[in-house]
Amino acid sequence: MANYQKILVAVDLSSESKVVLRKAQLIAGSSAEIYLIYVQEPMDNVYVGIVPQSAAFSGLGDLEAQLGEELKQKLLALGETFEIPAERLHILNGSPAHEIHRFAEENAVQLIVIGTHGQKGLQLLLGSTANAVLHGAACDVLSVRIGASR
Amino acid sequence: MANYQKILVAVDLSSESKVVLRKAQLIAGSSAEIYLIYVQEPMDNVYVGIVPQSAAFSGLGDLEAQLGEELKQKLLALGETFEIPAERLHILNGSPAHEIHRFAEENAVQLIVIGTHGQKGLQLLLGSTANAVLHGAACDVLSVRIGASR
Repeated sequence: MANYQKILVAVDLSSESKVVLRKAQLIAGSSAEIYLIYVQEPMDNVYVGIVPQSAAFSGLGDLEAQLGEELKQKLLALGETFEIPAERLHILNGSPAHEIHRFAEENAVQLIVIGTHGQKGLQLLLGSTANAVLHGAACDVLSVRIGASR
Repeated sequence: MANYQKILVAVDLSSESKVVLRKAQLIAGSSAEIYLIYVQEPMDNVYVGIVPQSAAFSGLGDLEAQLGEELKQKLLALGETFEIPAERLHILNGSPAHEIHRFAEENAVQLIVIGTHGQKGLQLLLGSTANAVLHGAACDVLSVRIGASR
Protein backbone atom coordinates (compact mmCIF):
# COMPACT_ATOMS: atom_id res chain seq x y z
CA MET A 1 0.00 0.00 0.00
CA ALA A 2 1.46 3.33 -1.04
CA ASN A 3 1.23 6.48 1.03
CA TYR A 4 -1.34 9.18 0.26
CA GLN A 5 -0.80 10.45 -3.27
CA LYS A 6 -3.71 12.88 -3.54
CA ILE A 7 -4.31 15.15 -0.59
CA LEU A 8 -6.95 17.86 -0.24
CA VAL A 9 -6.09 20.59 2.26
CA ALA A 10 -9.09 22.71 3.19
CA VAL A 11 -8.19 26.07 4.73
CA ASP A 12 -10.09 29.08 6.04
CA LEU A 13 -7.24 31.40 4.94
CA SER A 14 -6.61 32.53 8.52
CA SER A 15 -3.02 32.65 9.74
CA GLU A 16 -3.55 29.13 11.11
CA SER A 17 -3.86 27.77 7.58
CA LYS A 18 -0.06 27.52 7.48
CA VAL A 19 -0.05 25.09 10.41
CA VAL A 20 -2.53 22.85 8.60
CA LEU A 21 -0.62 23.00 5.33
CA ARG A 22 2.70 22.25 7.01
CA LYS A 23 1.26 19.08 8.57
CA ALA A 24 -0.12 18.01 5.21
CA GLN A 25 3.26 18.48 3.56
CA LEU A 26 4.97 16.43 6.28
CA ILE A 27 2.61 13.51 5.64
CA ALA A 28 2.68 13.83 1.86
CA GLY A 29 5.32 11.81 0.06
CA SER A 30 7.57 13.65 -2.38
CA SER A 31 5.40 12.50 -5.28
CA ALA A 32 2.06 13.44 -3.66
CA GLU A 33 -0.23 16.07 -5.13
CA ILE A 34 -1.67 18.60 -2.71
CA TYR A 35 -4.87 20.47 -3.60
CA LEU A 36 -5.40 23.64 -1.61
CA ILE A 37 -9.07 24.47 -1.23
CA TYR A 38 -11.02 27.36 0.20
CA VAL A 39 -14.81 27.19 0.28
CA GLN A 40 -16.62 30.49 0.16
CA GLU A 41 -20.10 30.31 1.59
CA PRO A 42 -22.60 32.48 -0.29
CA MET A 43 -23.24 35.59 1.80
CA ASP A 44 -27.00 35.19 1.63
CA ASN A 45 -26.48 31.82 3.39
CA VAL A 46 -24.35 33.35 6.09
CA TYR A 47 -26.50 36.40 6.76
CA VAL A 48 -29.99 35.07 6.21
CA GLY A 49 -32.06 35.87 9.28
CA ILE A 50 -29.34 38.11 10.70
CA VAL A 51 -29.59 41.20 8.51
CA PRO A 52 -32.88 42.48 7.10
CA GLN A 53 -33.49 41.97 3.39
CA SER A 54 -33.69 45.64 2.52
CA ALA A 55 -32.58 47.91 -0.28
CA ALA A 56 -29.49 48.80 1.78
CA PHE A 57 -28.21 45.32 1.06
CA SER A 58 -28.62 45.40 -2.66
CA GLY A 59 -24.84 45.93 -2.79
CA LEU A 60 -24.23 42.47 -1.31
CA GLY A 61 -23.30 41.02 -4.68
CA ASP A 62 -20.55 43.63 -5.23
CA LEU A 63 -19.23 43.11 -1.72
CA GLU A 64 -19.14 39.37 -2.32
CA ALA A 65 -17.20 39.80 -5.54
CA GLN A 66 -14.71 42.10 -3.81
CA LEU A 67 -14.28 39.63 -0.94
CA GLY A 68 -13.85 36.83 -3.47
CA GLU A 69 -10.99 38.74 -5.11
CA GLU A 70 -9.25 39.28 -1.76
CA LEU A 71 -9.59 35.61 -0.84
CA LYS A 72 -8.18 34.63 -4.22
CA GLN A 73 -5.09 36.77 -3.62
CA LYS A 74 -4.64 35.24 -0.17
CA LEU A 75 -4.96 31.73 -1.57
CA LEU A 76 -2.42 32.49 -4.32
CA ALA A 77 0.04 33.84 -1.75
CA LEU A 78 -0.41 30.78 0.46
CA GLY A 79 0.05 28.46 -2.52
CA GLU A 80 3.24 30.30 -3.48
CA THR A 81 4.67 30.00 0.06
CA PHE A 82 4.11 26.24 0.03
CA GLU A 83 5.05 25.74 -3.62
CA ILE A 84 1.66 24.44 -4.69
CA PRO A 85 1.06 24.91 -8.43
CA ALA A 86 -1.67 27.43 -9.29
CA GLU A 87 -3.78 24.75 -11.01
CA ARG A 88 -4.16 23.00 -7.65
CA LEU A 89 -5.54 26.06 -5.88
CA HIS A 90 -9.32 26.21 -5.86
CA ILE A 91 -11.97 28.49 -4.46
CA LEU A 92 -15.28 26.66 -4.33
CA ASN A 93 -18.68 28.12 -3.57
CA GLY A 94 -21.26 26.49 -1.34
CA SER A 95 -21.52 24.60 1.93
CA PRO A 96 -17.96 23.73 3.10
CA ALA A 97 -18.46 20.05 4.00
CA HIS A 98 -20.51 19.39 0.87
CA GLU A 99 -18.03 21.09 -1.47
CA ILE A 100 -15.04 19.38 0.17
CA HIS A 101 -16.69 15.95 -0.20
CA ARG A 102 -17.66 16.66 -3.80
CA PHE A 103 -14.19 17.85 -4.78
CA ALA A 104 -12.55 14.92 -2.97
CA GLU A 105 -14.70 12.39 -4.81
CA GLU A 106 -14.36 14.02 -8.23
CA ASN A 107 -10.57 14.11 -7.88
CA ALA A 108 -10.11 10.70 -6.21
CA VAL A 109 -8.55 12.34 -3.15
CA GLN A 110 -7.24 9.85 -0.56
CA LEU A 111 -6.82 12.20 2.40
CA ILE A 112 -8.58 15.37 3.49
CA VAL A 113 -6.63 17.61 5.89
CA ILE A 114 -8.57 20.18 7.88
CA GLY A 115 -7.97 22.35 10.94
CA THR A 116 -10.08 22.05 14.06
CA HIS A 117 -10.25 23.98 17.30
CA GLY A 118 -11.48 20.92 19.20
CA GLN A 119 -14.98 22.07 20.03
CA LYS A 120 -16.53 21.02 23.29
CA GLY A 121 -19.95 21.26 24.89
CA LEU A 122 -22.54 23.12 22.88
CA GLN A 123 -20.22 23.53 19.90
CA LEU A 124 -19.83 19.76 19.84
CA LEU A 125 -23.58 19.36 19.54
CA LEU A 126 -23.90 22.05 16.92
CA GLY A 127 -21.08 20.50 14.96
CA SER A 128 -18.06 22.09 13.35
CA THR A 129 -16.79 22.05 9.79
CA ALA A 130 -14.20 19.41 10.75
CA ASN A 131 -16.95 17.26 12.21
CA ALA A 132 -19.17 17.69 9.16
CA VAL A 133 -16.24 16.84 6.89
CA LEU A 134 -15.40 13.72 8.90
CA HIS A 135 -18.90 12.36 8.54
CA GLY A 136 -19.74 11.44 5.03
CA ALA A 137 -16.14 11.57 3.78
CA ALA A 138 -15.34 8.63 1.51
CA CYS A 139 -11.64 8.88 2.35
CA ASP A 140 -9.39 9.39 5.39
CA VAL A 141 -9.53 12.69 7.27
CA LEU A 142 -6.67 14.27 9.23
CA SER A 143 -7.96 16.82 11.74
CA VAL A 144 -5.13 19.16 12.67
CA ARG A 145 -5.57 20.63 16.13
CA ILE A 146 -5.18 24.39 16.00
CA GLY A 147 -3.90 26.22 19.04
CA ALA A 148 -2.82 22.99 20.74
CA SER A 149 0.11 22.99 23.10
CA ARG A 150 1.96 20.27 21.23
CA MET B 1 8.80 20.99 12.48
CA ALA B 2 9.41 17.25 12.72
CA ASN B 3 6.91 14.63 11.68
CA TYR B 4 4.78 12.81 14.26
CA GLN B 5 7.07 11.00 16.70
CA LYS B 6 4.47 9.59 19.09
CA ILE B 7 1.40 8.02 17.56
CA LEU B 8 -1.49 6.35 19.36
CA VAL B 9 -3.41 3.83 17.25
CA ALA B 10 -6.75 2.89 18.80
CA VAL B 11 -8.20 -0.36 17.45
CA ASP B 12 -11.32 -2.43 18.09
CA LEU B 13 -9.37 -5.65 17.33
CA SER B 14 -11.64 -6.47 14.37
CA SER B 15 -10.02 -7.56 11.12
CA GLU B 16 -10.18 -3.92 10.03
CA SER B 17 -7.64 -2.97 12.70
CA LYS B 18 -4.89 -3.95 10.25
CA VAL B 19 -6.03 -1.31 7.76
CA VAL B 20 -5.84 1.35 10.47
CA LEU B 21 -2.41 0.21 11.67
CA ARG B 22 -1.00 0.08 8.16
CA LYS B 23 -2.03 3.70 7.55
CA ALA B 24 -0.43 4.73 10.84
CA GLN B 25 2.84 3.03 9.90
CA LEU B 26 2.87 4.73 6.50
CA ILE B 27 2.60 8.13 8.16
CA ALA B 28 5.02 7.35 10.97
CA GLY B 29 8.65 8.19 10.34
CA SER B 30 11.21 5.44 10.94
CA SER B 31 11.98 6.85 14.39
CA ALA B 32 8.35 7.23 15.47
CA GLU B 33 6.89 5.30 18.40
CA ILE B 34 3.51 3.68 17.83
CA TYR B 35 1.32 2.83 20.82
CA LEU B 36 -1.36 0.25 20.06
CA ILE B 37 -4.40 0.68 22.30
CA TYR B 38 -7.58 -1.25 22.86
CA VAL B 39 -10.18 0.12 25.26
CA GLN B 40 -12.39 -2.43 26.95
CA GLU B 41 -15.65 -0.97 28.16
CA PRO B 42 -16.81 -2.44 31.47
CA MET B 43 -19.60 -4.91 30.72
CA ASP B 44 -21.92 -3.34 33.26
CA ASN B 45 -21.63 -0.14 31.20
CA VAL B 46 -22.46 -1.93 27.97
CA TYR B 47 -25.32 -4.03 29.28
CA VAL B 48 -26.89 -1.68 31.79
CA GLY B 49 -30.56 -1.41 30.95
CA ILE B 50 -30.35 -4.23 28.41
CA VAL B 51 -30.09 -7.29 30.62
CA PRO B 52 -31.80 -7.55 34.01
CA GLN B 53 -29.58 -7.33 37.08
CA SER B 54 -30.37 -10.82 38.34
CA ALA B 55 -28.49 -13.71 39.91
CA ALA B 56 -28.06 -15.25 36.46
CA PHE B 57 -25.58 -12.49 35.74
CA SER B 58 -23.45 -12.95 38.80
CA GLY B 59 -20.95 -14.70 36.50
CA LEU B 60 -20.41 -11.47 34.55
CA GLY B 61 -17.08 -10.84 36.27
CA ASP B 62 -15.68 -14.23 35.17
CA LEU B 63 -16.92 -13.71 31.64
CA GLU B 64 -15.30 -10.29 31.56
CA ALA B 65 -11.98 -11.72 32.74
CA GLN B 66 -12.12 -14.46 30.08
CA LEU B 67 -12.95 -11.92 27.36
CA GLY B 68 -10.12 -9.73 28.63
CA GLU B 69 -7.66 -12.61 28.19
CA GLU B 70 -8.86 -13.27 24.62
CA LEU B 71 -8.54 -9.59 23.72
CA LYS B 72 -5.03 -9.52 25.19
CA GLN B 73 -3.98 -12.43 22.96
CA LYS B 74 -5.47 -10.70 19.91
CA LEU B 75 -3.65 -7.47 20.73
CA LEU B 76 -0.34 -9.32 21.20
CA ALA B 77 -0.78 -11.08 17.84
CA LEU B 78 -1.55 -7.77 16.12
CA GLY B 79 1.45 -6.14 17.76
CA GLU B 80 3.70 -8.96 16.59
CA THR B 81 2.45 -8.69 12.99
CA PHE B 82 3.27 -4.99 12.92
CA GLU B 83 6.47 -5.27 14.97
CA ILE B 84 5.26 -3.11 17.83
CA PRO B 85 7.13 -3.81 21.08
CA ALA B 86 5.02 -5.44 23.81
CA GLU B 87 5.54 -2.48 26.14
CA ARG B 88 3.66 -0.28 23.68
CA LEU B 89 0.57 -2.50 23.62
CA HIS B 90 -2.08 -1.43 26.11
CA ILE B 91 -5.54 -2.58 27.10
CA LEU B 92 -7.32 0.21 28.94
CA ASN B 93 -10.60 -0.01 30.80
CA GLY B 94 -13.30 2.62 30.63
CA SER B 95 -15.02 4.87 28.14
CA PRO B 96 -13.08 4.72 24.81
CA ALA B 97 -12.85 8.44 24.03
CA HIS B 98 -11.99 9.33 27.62
CA GLU B 99 -9.30 6.67 27.95
CA ILE B 100 -7.79 7.52 24.56
CA HIS B 101 -7.59 11.22 25.48
CA ARG B 102 -6.11 10.43 28.89
CA PHE B 103 -3.47 8.07 27.49
CA ALA B 104 -2.61 10.54 24.73
CA GLU B 105 -2.06 13.38 27.18
CA GLU B 106 -0.11 11.31 29.71
CA ASN B 107 2.22 10.07 26.97
CA ALA B 108 2.52 13.33 25.01
CA VAL B 109 1.06 11.69 21.91
CA GLN B 110 1.06 13.93 18.81
CA LEU B 111 -1.33 11.97 16.61
CA ILE B 112 -4.27 9.67 17.34
CA VAL B 113 -5.23 7.25 14.54
CA ILE B 114 -8.67 5.67 14.65
CA GLY B 115 -10.95 3.81 12.24
CA THR B 116 -14.34 5.17 11.25
CA HIS B 117 -17.19 3.83 9.21
CA GLY B 118 -18.33 7.32 8.26
CA GLN B 119 -21.64 7.45 10.06
CA LYS B 120 -24.53 9.32 8.54
CA GLY B 121 -27.99 10.39 9.63
CA LEU B 122 -29.00 9.22 13.08
CA GLN B 123 -25.56 7.78 13.82
CA LEU B 124 -24.10 11.20 13.10
CA LEU B 125 -26.35 12.73 15.73
CA LEU B 126 -25.66 10.00 18.25
CA GLY B 127 -21.96 10.30 17.62
CA SER B 128 -19.38 7.62 17.05
CA THR B 129 -16.16 6.79 18.87
CA ALA B 130 -14.16 8.54 16.12
CA ASN B 131 -16.31 11.62 16.57
CA ALA B 132 -15.97 11.54 20.35
CA VAL B 133 -12.20 11.11 19.99
CA LEU B 134 -11.95 14.05 17.57
CA HIS B 135 -13.69 16.37 19.98
CA GLY B 136 -11.67 17.09 23.04
CA ALA B 137 -8.43 15.68 21.62
CA ALA B 138 -5.47 17.90 22.43
CA CYS B 139 -3.55 16.60 19.39
CA ASP B 140 -4.16 15.78 15.73
CA VAL B 141 -6.54 12.96 14.81
CA LEU B 142 -6.37 10.81 11.67
CA SER B 143 -9.69 9.11 10.96
CA VAL B 144 -9.12 6.14 8.69
CA ARG B 145 -12.14 5.32 6.58
CA ILE B 146 -12.98 1.65 6.91
CA GLY B 147 -14.69 -0.11 4.03
CA ALA B 148 -14.03 2.75 1.63
CA SER B 149 -13.47 2.09 -2.04
CA ARG B 150 -10.11 3.83 -2.08
